Amino acid sequence: MTRPAAAVLLTGSELLDGRTRDRNGYYLGAALSARGFAVSHVLVSPDDPDGLRRDLRFLLDERPAVLVISGGLGTTHDDLTAETVDAVTDRPLADDPAAVRMVTDATRRVATRRGLELEGLLPEMARQARLPAGSRAIEPAGVAPGFMTCHDGTAIVALPGVPWEVEAMWPAVLEELATGAGAEAPATLSLRLYGWGEVQVAALLRGCATDRLRLAITASCGEVTVTAGYERSDAAASAQADALAATLASAGPVFSRDGRGVDQIVADLLRGRGATVATAESCTGGLLGGRLTELPGSSAYVAGGAIVYSNAAKRALLGVPADLLEAHGAVSAPVAQSMAERARSALAASYALSVTGIAGPDGGTPDKPVGLVFIGCAGAGETLVRRHEFPGDRATVRAWSVVAALHLLRRSLER
Amino acid sequence: MTRPAAAVLLTGSELLDGRTRDRNGYYLGAALSARGFAVSHVLVSPDDPDGLRRDLRFLLDERPAVLVISGGLGTTHDDLTAETVDAVTDRPLADDPAAVRMVTDATRRVATRRGLELEGLLPEMARQARLPAGSRAIEPAGVAPGFMTCHDGTAIVALPGVPWEVEAMWPAVLEELATGAGAEAPATLSLRLYGWGEVQVAALLRGCATDRLRLAITASCGEVTVTAGYERSDAAASAQADALAATLASAGPVFSRDGRGVDQIVADLLRGRGATVATAESCTGGLLGGRLTELPGSSAYVAGGAIVYSNAAKRALLGVPADLLEAHGAVSAPVAQSMAERARSALAASYALSVTGIAGPDGGTPDKPVGLVFIGCAGAGETLVRRHEFPGDRATVRAWSVVAALHLLRRSLER
Repeated sequence: MTRPAAAVLLTGSELLDGRTRDRNGYYLGAALSARGFAVSHVLVSPDDPDGLRRDLRFLLDERPAVLVISGGLGTTHDDLTAETVDAVTDRPLADDPAAVRMVTDATRRVATRRGLELEGLLPEMARQARLPAGSRAIEPAGVAPGFMTCHDGTAIVALPGVPWEVEAMWPAVLEELATGAGAEAPATLSLRLYGWGEVQVAALLRGCATDRLRLAITASCGEVTVTAGYERSDAAASAQADALAATLASAGPVFSRDGRGVDQIVADLLRGRGATVATAESCTGGLLGGRLTELPGSSAYVAGGAIVYSNAAKRALLGVPADLLEAHGAVSAPVAQSMAERARSALAASYALSVTGIAGPDGGTPDKPVGLVFIGCAGAGETLVRRHEFPGDRATVRAWSVVAALHLLRRSLER
Repeated sequence: MTRPAAAVLLTGSELLDGRTRDRNGYYLGAALSARGFAVSHVLVSPDDPDGLRRDLRFLLDERPAVLVISGGLGTTHDDLTAETVDAVTDRPLADDPAAVRMVTDATRRVATRRGLELEGLLPEMARQARLPAGSRAIEPAGVAPGFMTCHDGTAIVALPGVPWEVEAMWPAVLEELATGAGAEAPATLSLRLYGWGEVQVAALLRGCATDRLRLAITASCGEVTVTAGYERSDAAASAQADALAATLASAGPVFSRDGRGVDQIVADLLRGRGATVATAESCTGGLLGGRLTELPGSSAYVAGGAIVYSNAAKRALLGVPADLLEAHGAVSAPVAQSMAERARSALAASYALSVTGIAGPDGGTPDKPVGLVFIGCAGAGETLVRRHEFPGDRATVRAWSVVAALHLLRRSLER
């Protein structure tokens, strides 16, 4: 069975010129893929009437089963989605009674929260209830309703551009789209490795048959992810996937075979043992703590942490001895060990992670270059310390450090 | 003068199906815009030979001055950029001597860093040196060289997909492209407001003439940004921009008129006074500290912080009194005040920010709903505490909290 195609059009000049970093393309693409669509494009277009029409036509020309438009439903002059759908599919705009009710109700909710009285809709607000003829309004999460219409076999769905509104409105819409298109969630093999480069993985897989798989190898922050999608009914594909998984698991440092990321694995291991983790961060400045508390319910296993960016903070919050800092420097294995052990004890945690390094761009020396990071993990019996030299700029070094710390905790928990 | 057009093509199925969150589209678009190009599209396409050809043709059909392709230069079977450029522009692939040298040198550097001996290039590596005829190799930051070629008036540039490699290779390439296309960096008015919604700003601007401006209003985490781009030589546009700025500044809560974000403003204010800031974070779990240490050189003004996700951590690291927690609950103004004051004192900082709230999805009550966040800022003379109710999901509440904390610090510093 071929997967039905889906395309995504993101509108907004601010997404093209650096004002806003898009979140919806990633989110919508991931969700469509997981539900059985083949995502053919994510196209970001500026708020320009002619350009939007041409781009909408380009995507419709491929006749995808689904076309999701995000953005351009708001109150300002450059919100053009309804007009563009009208122009391309010949569906004149009119006040949609359901949408009028939705906008009015939502505006009233916002007004009440701010302690204001609603005295009727501003023209800017009412604009959001003008929909292409024959479309169905979708209940808004914020104020702007979405809409859905069908054109030459393509279900066109328009959603707002605000990410949390998209994420609130989307699941019900996706289920309806998938049912309508007969999309079948694919089988997916997903293996993650830590400690090998992409090229080593690619070389290992040269010996595997993969012609029936949608194979992809991606690398991020020192992790390599190998995924292979295939139809559930395809026995030959399933056999190829099994062989691939066996090859990787026997020769490579596979840490996940079920799609879970290291965050989730660490969370599950900690929770399963009733254990807690504390953090002591220098160059990551809190990012590791931020990452550990990203998952809902993380209060069950995150004890807390210390951000000890300066030597003074290392002494004040954790009591790292001044002579240790003096003798080895802040970026050293003994200091990483001390930070981890002292954070563990100060926060009465089962484990503690420490990160100390040189994220750059300044502060590197020939002995201790930018990218040098020591990571410690203190447990009940022992403290592991690892030395890394990460490539890239400040943000990259910090991101790799966070991932390396999570993996060191994972290894400690798996021992 | 019309701005030369630029388009960006990002290749990689992993960018479409949720495996990897793209960073390059944002980065390249922002840089092109700031240097005077009009970015017409960012198109993300899967690693599919036919699709890539069609998409490359679609973008070339518009005859942009510049087309930047990112991704698909690597070692694996789904790296197809050179092949696609060959197929669409009829430039057969061949080993490029400069590229062979670059790949060999880069591979040797990586091998040396890992303590390995280089015994010649694997076929996967050599593949990266096969370039379309007539193109020029671009020195790699990692291992894969980029290339540049000209086709029917469009400068086609191919770069790797790894963000830090792109960011290292790009500035020199951009300058060459801009010079070649005669791009002139535009004048840009940029005002940022905090405390108003997008719709209030739009209503205020209804009275302003903006027909000669490229006006955009965007909202993110409680901030609204109004930007207007125009040609430096256009006096009428310049007058419209001045009037717009005056209207906003007199009626709205403008905090930035020079393009700086709140991060940079706070950093500059702290640095200018030789002041430092500490943090005490509950629901943000370290994100605020991570944000404050994002800028290079932040060690000059970040004293450190405490991640006090649990009540036990609030007591252990900061000494927040148990009876205060008991009487008011962890999410309360008195606890926010105590956290800020105690972090300031523990870390001997000039200022300290605290965040305590309910990020959700669980833990909300009718009295203290999900999204309720108290933010404190302790300074020498006084401690400010603000109560917020933020909309959205866990990630959104945490992101808005970080921004609100930065603004509270800004206000304290500006008093």
